[in-house]
Amino acid sequence: MRLLIALGGNAMTAADGSARPADQRAAITAAMEAVADLVVAGHRVVLTHGNGPQVGNLLLKNELAAEVVPPVPLDWCGAQTQATIGMLAMDALDRLLPERGSSTRSATLVSRTLVDRDDPAFATPTKPIGRYVTRAEAELMMDHGQHWVEIKDRGWRRVVASPEPRECLDVAGVTALLDAGYVVVCSGGGGIPTVSDEQEGYIGVEAVIDKDLTAALLAMQLDVDTLVIATDVDSAVIGWGTPQARPLGRVTPVELRRLATEGHFAAGSMAPKVEAVTRFAERTGRPGVITSLARIEAAVAGDAGTRVLVDV
Amino acid sequence: MRLLIALGGNAMTAADGSARPADQRAAITAAMEAVADLVVAGHRVVLTHGNGPQVGNLLLKNELAAEVVPPVPLDWCGAQTQATIGMLAMDALDRLLPERGSSTRSATLVSRTLVDRDDPAFATPTKPIGRYVTRAEAELMMDHGQHWVEIKDRGWRRVVASPEPRECLDVAGVTALLDAGYVVVCSGGGGIPTVSDEQEGYIGVEAVIDKDLTAALLAMQLDVDTLVIATDVDSAVIGWGTPQARPLGRVTPVELRRLATEGHFAAGSMAPKVEAVTRFAERTGRPGVITSLARIEAAVAGDAGTRVLVDV
Repeated sequence: MRLLIALGGNAMTAADGSARPADQRAAITAAMEAVADLVVAGHRVVLTHGNGPQVGNLLLKNELAAEVVPPVPLDWCGAQTQATIGMLAMDALDRLLPERGSSTRSATLVSRTLVDRDDPAFATPTKPIGRYVTRAEAELMMDHGQHWVEIKDRGWRRVVASPEPRECLDVAGVTALLDAGYVVVCSGGGGIPTVSDEQEGYIGVEAVIDKDLTAALLAMQLDVDTLVIATDVDSAVIGWGTPQARPLGRVTPVELRRLATEGHFAAGSMAPKVEAVTRFAERTGRPGVITSLARIEAAVAGDAGTRVLVDV
Repeated sequence: MRLLIALGGNAMTAADGSARPADQRAAITAAMEAVADLVVAGHRVVLTHGNGPQVGNLLLKNELAAEVVPPVPLDWCGAQTQATIGMLAMDALDRLLPERGSSTRSATLVSRTLVDRDDPAFATPTKPIGRYVTRAEAELMMDHGQHWVEIKDRGWRRVVASPEPRECLDVAGVTALLDAGYVVVCSGGGGIPTVSDEQEGYIGVEAVIDKDLTAALLAMQLDVDTLVIATDVDSAVIGWGTPQARPLGRVTPVELRRLATEGHFAAGSMAPKVEAVTRFAERTGRPGVITSLARIEAAVAGDAGTRVLVDV
């Protein structure tokens, strides 16, 4: 089977959220154990991943150095995290796959995601990113064209647009490598947010694309058999935090949308994962799965996780 | 013909050496005009590139933010520049190629280069990188494991190893994409310096690999027809700065090595380019060329540049 696996923050950073280089290497190496098992089981795997803590660190470096070195835009920071995370994933797979008797190779593609310049998200940037700063610090960054808002009693925080992903621009290269037998790492952090400009052609834009929504789009463009959103829980849970809490197993897109409307899934956390697997199941008639790294193999076989499918 | 083109600093930054984001975009877009012309002329092109000013900026950000955000190693900075430069190259080619009636696509691969852990360069790091700092600033970075040396009357400067590139690890993916018709951007900054560790497998290492020497190795591994080192002069020059100065046209590897030994080519500038094209010509019997972006098409046809070939 062709699988698209979207790795969440827990596959990228230490349990305490630390994104120090050694922590990133350890977390990604652990995640690649599950991926290597899938490859050895005969699946063709495309990996995508989040990049929140990594981009947070890069933004902070840009801010702290802004008086000496010109800051690079957010889309550049996203591109940078694709390379470092891809490097770590390839290093790990190049050890774990031969250990399992596999000669499968891996490749990381720098990947852009098209968004609409007139997406309403750009008119009202609302996605807060990075740390709280003083007014003076925020003003320095606003001089470089960024949007910052004052949040009562906390300080100033940067806000960016989170537009809808429209097209994974570099998907043909992914297909070429996948067909050649590679594990492909691509579209990290939701892909580099890119608009199509009449004069300049494609050009990066300061925004954050939800990595789960990009994963759904990528899964459709690649025509994979299953979309797997890997996170830190074995299944999505309804009634979370109540005595009625129960893990969600097999479910139809219609039922899952009803549960989402009822507010069972946290915004910015489980909600976009649910939206991603639902979109994939609706458009393709194939399963979307939410599960943990430890349960991926069982979930792909239909025996674990939250599994969304039109015909349950 | 299959061409490997190595782009130098002038294709990456403004004429004054500035590596601000807009300057990088403008310089790379201009360089891609020459590349697009080659593609339309029927050549299959692999691009590699330097990253000195870009890595310099990233290192400086790491240093300035070191008390707040853990610095990432030099190999991570190199990876980061592969992604941003590749992104800019793809944006430009996606406009310039369709403008010329070509539907050729491009792809950027994150690429590692294997070096020997016992390369003598690691015992005595000598390659100075980045800016001069005070003893106190250097000591902070030394606490993070870096090597810095005091240079009389100037201050402290970081030194790193510049080991010999042994193998481009991700070349199979390049071949797959090249065969599928892509312009491939890879091995930027000489590739991410990587050693093979008995326990950990591949792991990045803090070093700087000469991008021209990696280009020669990559050209051999890819079995291209011509290696082109693109720089800011039309040809290598002998007797530079003397009344006897003259551009070098066709030359054998033996003759070029003799000229190099006589000191005609500046260390760290023209000398590694000369070494790169000489190695390629010696090992493959095919031409290595040094020329400017403006003269690439003529140089590939054998009508411009410094052309090294066993049988001139």
